[in-house]
Amino acid sequence: MGSSWDFGVSKELTEVERRIRESVKSGEPLLTEIASYVIDSGGKRLRPTVALLSFKASGDGDPAKIIELAAAFELIHSATLIHDDINDSGGMRRGRVAAYIKYGVQNALVTGDFLYVKGFAIGGKSPPEIVDLTADVCAMLAEGEIAQKKHSGDVSLTDAQYLDIIRKKTALPIGASAQTGAMLAGASPRIVSDMADYGVNLGIAFQIVDDVLDVTGDPDILGKPVGTDIREGNVTLPTIHALNNGSSVNREELMRIIRRKNKNEDHVRKAMDIIRRSGAVEKALADAESFSKKAKDSLHRIPSDNKYKAEMEKLADFVIERSR
Amino acid sequence: MGSSWDFGVSKELTEVERRIRESVKSGEPLLTEIASYVIDSGGKRLRPTVALLSFKASGDGDPAKIIELAAAFELIHSATLIHDDINDSGGMRRGRVAAYIKYGVQNALVTGDFLYVKGFAIGGKSPPEIVDLTADVCAMLAEGEIAQKKHSGDVSLTDAQYLDIIRKKTALPIGASAQTGAMLAGASPRIVSDMADYGVNLGIAFQIVDDVLDVTGDPDILGKPVGTDIREGNVTLPTIHALNNGSSVNREELMRIIRRKNKNEDHVRKAMDIIRRSGAVEKALADAESFSKKAKDSLHRIPSDNKYKAEMEKLADFVIERSR
Repeated sequence: MGSSWDFGVSKELTEVERRIRESVKSGEPLLTEIASYVIDSGGKRLRPTVALLSFKASGDGDPAKIIELAAAFELIHSATLIHDDINDSGGMRRGRVAAYIKYGVQNALVTGDFLYVKGFAIGGKSPPEIVDLTADVCAMLAEGEIAQKKHSGDVSLTDAQYLDIIRKKTALPIGASAQTGAMLAGASPRIVSDMADYGVNLGIAFQIVDDVLDVTGDPDILGKPVGTDIREGNVTLPTIHALNNGSSVNREELMRIIRRKNKNEDHVRKAMDIIRRSGAVEKALADAESFSKKAKDSLHRIPSDNKYKAEMEKLADFVIERSR
Repeated sequence: MGSSWDFGVSKELTEVERRIRESVKSGEPLLTEIASYVIDSGGKRLRPTVALLSFKASGDGDPAKIIELAAAFELIHSATLIHDDINDSGGMRRGRVAAYIKYGVQNALVTGDFLYVKGFAIGGKSPPEIVDLTADVCAMLAEGEIAQKKHSGDVSLTDAQYLDIIRKKTALPIGASAQTGAMLAGASPRIVSDMADYGVNLGIAFQIVDDVLDVTGDPDILGKPVGTDIREGNVTLPTIHALNNGSSVNREELMRIIRRKNKNEDHVRKAMDIIRRSGAVEKALADAESFSKKAKDSLHRIPSDNKYKAEMEKLADFVIERSR
């Protein structure tokens, strides 16, 4: 997202980076190297950004504690990225070759565990309700992974089932980041719940756009190849819409491709083409926009002169804009 | 270890089992199934046993809290077993086919993460010093894995380097179990440190015996194949002793086999034969016995009429006896 990724918390994000880097120091240099490789490749730091914004929008305390937790969330997120890449045979991540390819599956798997532990080491110093929340969303994340794999190549996946999977895999962790920010800011239960809603809806919008970009995006800009969901058999919202709305000839062909165990690049290109021509992309983006709007609406109790509210709205817009 | 595995804490171990099973319940049935598959295959519950014994030997409080943590340690241990098997291509574990073979690498990897999270969810409710201790030993565990892989096929590995690896991979987690038991019992810093020493030395003895059994054991009794360390290129204490003590002809041949990238079963058998005939097994077992003795010696401040002290001594003997 480059230089436009600035939502008024860049000072705190620098502190989060420092804390992350401090965490991954290890007596085993290779472990630090692999962990740093994954962390250095950047990424948007969406979870820390959301945690910091929510904290700042709902109170005005010392951000030290939320900086710690924001680092924990990003460490845990980095752990899941490494393990996801191993599981999905993802070749590129954040514009670089995936860690498991560069360093081998064994070293990458262990580094994922290491990052998990480092995240939990910080998270475990939090009040018990935050420990529970973090552990719950991490468990949900595992459930989402299992559900996604279970439905691999499943052309009957409904949009409700799809939403449930991305809720678990992406939206709840982002919701937890926002919720934790408000909790640590000492916000009222109502505001805490509003912030959780913001994060969850933002996360759903974000993931839908991610799934759209996998069909329409430019690999050079994304830093990863496109068509991976089709290649891996993950049925996402653009595919679901195409299966429900395209011409019957195209639907049959798309179904055949999705169900194939071994897809070649012609199959993948053909499927992407069918999806793009079906109007499914526009429909999925309209869905994403409605979740982005829901995210913004959940901020209605925050006074309109709160400058971080404006940043959170800007972030919700940004998540959609990157699809354009 | 069968029916003789009873060290006066079986009632509490039943509670630990209950807590573990409660932890792995999930909305995604497959996740519970895989987690239960790994947990049901039993294992010795060494870490919970050590935690409970240490707690009981150093105080007389309500064991509820240590039962929780003992469950957490076993959950984390189970997580590492699943990931280890993926990394070592281990085919059998605790007498059953490894989870990643039965359920696939992707599902197994995610279940490992899930078990990690469930362990940390419990551990994260502990006092900060216990969170730190747990996270530190988990990070060390990752370091040990990386170090072991780095030294794969390294015929110049010294016994000091070997001890450092097994300390990180096995002994420190067992030490942390014992240490935590004493901490939660409210023992004095000196007793807490004694208990940590007990666990670490017990863990080293246990791992040396495990490594010996990989050369001398009966696969039917062990519930896993033997020769795996040689096959995987892990240089363990019996091999180190054989390389230092055998005849020069045999040493040359053993080195050649260990350095080979692709070993066939003849190579593995030949290497095991050389190790067994070199006197290395007896030497490694003598080392294990000295660590077992160190473990018992670290209990010297516990009064001799403390019945759990006797059980801890029995456990330290048991760890050696299973090699016979």
